[in-house]
Amino acid sequence: MATTTLKGQPFDRPVLDSMLRRRMFYTPSFEVYGGVAGLFDYGPPGCALQANVIDLWRKHFVLEEDMLEVDCTALTPADVLKTSGHVDKFADWMCKDPKNGDIMRADHFVEEILEARLKGDKEARGVKVEEKEEDPKKKKKKVKATEAVKLDDAVVKEYEEILAQIDNYNGQELGQLIKKYEMKNPNTGVEPLPPVEFNLMFSTPIGPSGNLAGYLRPETAQGQFLNFAKLLDFNQQQMPFASASIGKSYRNEISPRSGLLRVREFLMAEIEHYVDPHGGKKHHRFDEVKDVELVLLNRHTQLAGQTLVKKVAIGKAVADGTVNNETLGYFLARIHLFLEKIGIDQTKIRFRQHMANEMAHYAADCWDAELLTSYGWIECVGCADRSAYDLTVHAKKTGAPLMVRERLAEPITIEEWQIDLDKKKFGPHFKKDGKTVEAAIEALPQDKREALAQDLKLDGKITIEVEGVGNGKVEISKDLIVIERRKRVENTREFTPNVIEPSFGIGRILYCLMEHTYWTRGSDGGDEARGVLSFPPTVAPTKVLLVPLSTHESFKPLLQHMSLKLRSLGVSSRVDDSSASIGKRYSRNDELGTPLGITIDFQSVQDKTYTLRDRDSTKQVRADEETILKAIKSLVEGEKVWADVEKELPAFEGQEVDVPVR
Amino acid sequence: MATTTLKGQPFDRPVLDSMLRRRMFYTPSFEVYGGVAGLFDYGPPGCALQANVIDLWRKHFVLEEDMLEVDCTALTPADVLKTSGHVDKFADWMCKDPKNGDIMRADHFVEEILEARLKGDKEARGVKVEEKEEDPKKKKKKVKATEAVKLDDAVVKEYEEILAQIDNYNGQELGQLIKKYEMKNPNTGVEPLPPVEFNLMFSTPIGPSGNLAGYLRPETAQGQFLNFAKLLDFNQQQMPFASASIGKSYRNEISPRSGLLRVREFLMAEIEHYVDPHGGKKHHRFDEVKDVELVLLNRHTQLAGQTLVKKVAIGKAVADGTVNNETLGYFLARIHLFLEKIGIDQTKIRFRQHMANEMAHYAADCWDAELLTSYGWIECVGCADRSAYDLTVHAKKTGAPLMVRERLAEPITIEEWQIDLDKKKFGPHFKKDGKTVEAAIEALPQDKREALAQDLKLDGKITIEVEGVGNGKVEISKDLIVIERRKRVENTREFTPNVIEPSFGIGRILYCLMEHTYWTRGSDGGDEARGVLSFPPTVAPTKVLLVPLSTHESFKPLLQHMSLKLRSLGVSSRVDDSSASIGKRYSRNDELGTPLGITIDFQSVQDKTYTLRDRDSTKQVRADEETILKAIKSLVEGEKVWADVEKELPAFEGQEVDVPVR
Repeated sequence: MATTTLKGQPFDRPVLDSMLRRRMFYTPSFEVYGGVAGLFDYGPPGCALQANVIDLWRKHFVLEEDMLEVDCTALTPADVLKTSGHVDKFADWMCKDPKNGDIMRADHFVEEILEARLKGDKEARGVKVEEKEEDPKKKKKKVKATEAVKLDDAVVKEYEEILAQIDNYNGQELGQLIKKYEMKNPNTGVEPLPPVEFNLMFSTPIGPSGNLAGYLRPETAQGQFLNFAKLLDFNQQQMPFASASIGKSYRNEISPRSGLLRVREFLMAEIEHYVDPHGGKKHHRFDEVKDVELVLLNRHTQLAGQTLVKKVAIGKAVADGTVNNETLGYFLARIHLFLEKIGIDQTKIRFRQHMANEMAHYAADCWDAELLTSYGWIECVGCADRSAYDLTVHAKKTGAPLMVRERLAEPITIEEWQIDLDKKKFGPHFKKDGKTVEAAIEALPQDKREALAQDLKLDGKITIEVEGVGNGKVEISKDLIVIERRKRVENTREFTPNVIEPSFGIGRILYCLMEHTYWTRGSDGGDEARGVLSFPPTVAPTKVLLVPLSTHESFKPLLQHMSLKLRSLGVSSRVDDSSASIGKRYSRNDELGTPLGITIDFQSVQDKTYTLRDRDSTKQVRADEETILKAIKSLVEGEKVWADVEKELPAFEGQEVDVPVR
Repeated sequence: MATTTLKGQPFDRPVLDSMLRRRMFYTPSFEVYGGVAGLFDYGPPGCALQANVIDLWRKHFVLEEDMLEVDCTALTPADVLKTSGHVDKFADWMCKDPKNGDIMRADHFVEEILEARLKGDKEARGVKVEEKEEDPKKKKKKVKATEAVKLDDAVVKEYEEILAQIDNYNGQELGQLIKKYEMKNPNTGVEPLPPVEFNLMFSTPIGPSGNLAGYLRPETAQGQFLNFAKLLDFNQQQMPFASASIGKSYRNEISPRSGLLRVREFLMAEIEHYVDPHGGKKHHRFDEVKDVELVLLNRHTQLAGQTLVKKVAIGKAVADGTVNNETLGYFLARIHLFLEKIGIDQTKIRFRQHMANEMAHYAADCWDAELLTSYGWIECVGCADRSAYDLTVHAKKTGAPLMVRERLAEPITIEEWQIDLDKKKFGPHFKKDGKTVEAAIEALPQDKREALAQDLKLDGKITIEVEGVGNGKVEISKDLIVIERRKRVENTREFTPNVIEPSFGIGRILYCLMEHTYWTRGSDGGDEARGVLSFPPTVAPTKVLLVPLSTHESFKPLLQHMSLKLRSLGVSSRVDDSSASIGKRYSRNDELGTPLGITIDFQSVQDKTYTLRDRDSTKQVRADEETILKAIKSLVEGEKVWADVEKELPAFEGQEVDVPVR
């Protein structure tokens, strides 16, 4: 997809990718062994960027709202994931080529074939077509050469509508599309077999006997749900509250592609916010965010086969029902503010609502924060209202009380059908079946009790079903039982909280951040364009580059001094005292996204003043040590921006080494 | 094992364990599903403690020495772990009970039986025996009742010698011990089957076809080794340097026990320091640590069946050869300083050298930092000199250049046997076999070349072995080949670095830290003793407890104000405005290890002064807001200790709510 850089230049992905690998932001795992699709390592700058984004995440969400952070295991027994539905349903549809055994993800296959046909149609119509870059390793499975074949206007419309709701089809439907539109594997020319389900969880037995089936978690949520009762206790029974978790999850993707965007092992940061389902799921801090404007792509627009979006204040979106409730809306706004804070391009965020088939059946509403990249719009944060589903199924399965028991401010009176048994006669009458029959009676719901009260009045006896006793039907006469409508006073209320779940794919966010902050600096001398990553100082891997003017001995003590000073301020820095030119050294650090540079020159040796350079503008200021350090600290902590520093400190024009963007 | 608390009181593990679970430092994973042995979750305080210890680790090691941090995947293809030796050798010995199928770790089994017999002997001799507490779930496999049977003095000595070197036996030897001393499973009364190997790695296939065998990494080292060439490049080819990694590893323990000490999923922090093997593995900062005194338990002492230790300066231990080299010694001292910094009891650390059978065959030396707990001495940090093993085997397997190419300061002259071929005649003579024969000649080692030069001189021809050509032997006459001893000037040097690997088990360190900082406060009123965790402020999960004197409305704005102030200083705090007494609220936070408390009272409302309370002494000072905040910051950053603050600020005696330890 044709996108532009931060400065509006056409974006060239292969150039950025090669820069990110050269600077070791990331690298394919096990590359000397040929690599494994979907596994990547982070090198030093990628690792630092990740740590800084996580640190901001923790401050923005966990500390800001006193969330309870937990660290649960990735190894998970199969029982837990059976109950949660993952063992049965966490699957993608895959197609196998009957001729050569190629395995393809069914929706990706349909998508690629239709996109290729639409591209061929455009070519046939003489419309200029952009080239879409793909991972070179996936080339063989790509639709190789596009044939310029003109399609009917009606067919073009059909294809576009299918693509707009590609996430909405199940396996049968994808199979029908493949048949209907005669889609063939371009590698073999044959139609693939019908889609079958492939479970995406990695399985591994636990323990020496191999009898305990286990999986690697596909999300960090389940461990949080299972600890609900303990967390509520830790929170001294106060609702609402949230738990949070940062950790690795695992998905055995059918055909990983798109670099860091679809991987098999990834870092997630997930929040489970527990809220009382009664009272409209209000949020006490909603007012603080109600004017935050979001770009929304709702469900109805998508089902109409369109991708039109509108920008709307979250307060309005909740009020008119576009977004289901305040708590969900609160988190959508908070997610937006977080993405803004770390440096995501504001023109490349949208929130897309899930369509019916995409969303779990229990979910009340679900929105994805999608970021625009050269791969298209990428889901980076999910925000779902999972209702009471998870706590309910685990409680039902285990009998654990995953619920809230709340003292009512005012007791309430409940009128209901109550049953009394004459215990003295009841026991001897039913003998060994007594307990079973009693349990069956106690389990009778209110509507049934009302009907039975009527029977008892009319017939002097009732008949109820009791499994395992006699022929399964038991008769009870009026001398053993009384059924009456009575009032009862209730002082507490029990409920299963609903869960609002903001769920962040950290690796995807990091990749989008790198695309969004990338641009190239031209050069007067006609050199090739040089890459820059304009990370905000708060998330940049290294904050300050220390460069001595030359390798002269007199600079060494100052370098060491400033290095120590910065370390004691908690500001990460790197020294480059290599013999390369100052320009080269700054260039290297532009590629690493280092926002600030301190040059140490002969004047520094004399009067302990230093120049401070801004990566983006290449402007420099000069001041004494204390002033420079103070400016750095305020920039790195996000309290000031470079424009502030430029206003306050005298400019330095002496050794301009770089040329700003054309 | 009978240990004492920080204040010298007898240590009661069940009491601490129950406190740690109640306060949710940790909790068994999936407990509502019955739990899984060896899997634990960290709750909010455990999670914060872990994050703070990791943060200090990163500052102490990674930032201090500009190490290159990487984040590699846990999923690892089998090929990698085959090369590293883990597929064949990463195993424990397990015994199966032929009667009931009990599976036991062979060394643990021998250990438990012998310890029980020694205990029985002591009882028979009328010596008082301490009770050793075990995880209640493991009870069934424990030696149930100790029989008071007196043993011969010689037998007692034999048992003690076996126990002193229990880590030194292989499976055959353990089997022989079981036979020789007639050890029987106490649950069945029968002797277990001979020990067999059980590989401790979790296996999981990668990808939809299931054809790519994979494992979860048992350590984080391999990913670092495989990135060696890229990291060296990132470091601009400068040696020595270190990489570091913090992440989860997985070991499928046969019978997890001892709570957090032997688990199946755990956080590791590992450093791989790459050093030139020539020149004695010096370290340029060794002088800074040479006077650090360590308690050393060397290999010879252990083999003699003893456990005597001595305290010695690391400079001396390296000088006299006890510790193999300076770099290894440097890291042992740095490990010691780190453990000291986070609050480990200095009287409960020792460094134990690995014995021959324990250590990998390639290792030059290996020492474990062991911490004393109620479970005995526990290995928490390993520090091994892995020599060039890992880089060599991976380079050999993959052909990747995992080595350093260094420009020599002065070129060196090498005298060697060189071979020239007459290319014009050679090609036509051997035709299609030419390349193969040429390769075989080039591969000839120096000693062989010398012998062949002799043959050529005597016979006018040589015969060499070339696989796949003719009958495997090829004759070459002197008109095709010349073999001569000549001089060659070398400007670069190639070598495979050796690796010094400090490897930290974070979960074990956290557990030991909790045991080491725990003590109980008596009470004048005769209440039961109350638990305290005296974490240093730098690692404490929460730094400050904010308590209003009562629930009076006038305290609320001050609470919120101080809360915000502390957050903006990056100091974690918690408000307890419940209606419990101040003493109760402080007690709760003593159990959470919160080092500081601010009380907000009516005087605070009037004059904005606050009292600051020290957890350990329960002493209080009073001052204005700015002074109090400054004191907190200096305590939390480790710049001051409470004694300093007490000297500087006026004491406050008004509302003494706790009574110091008797």
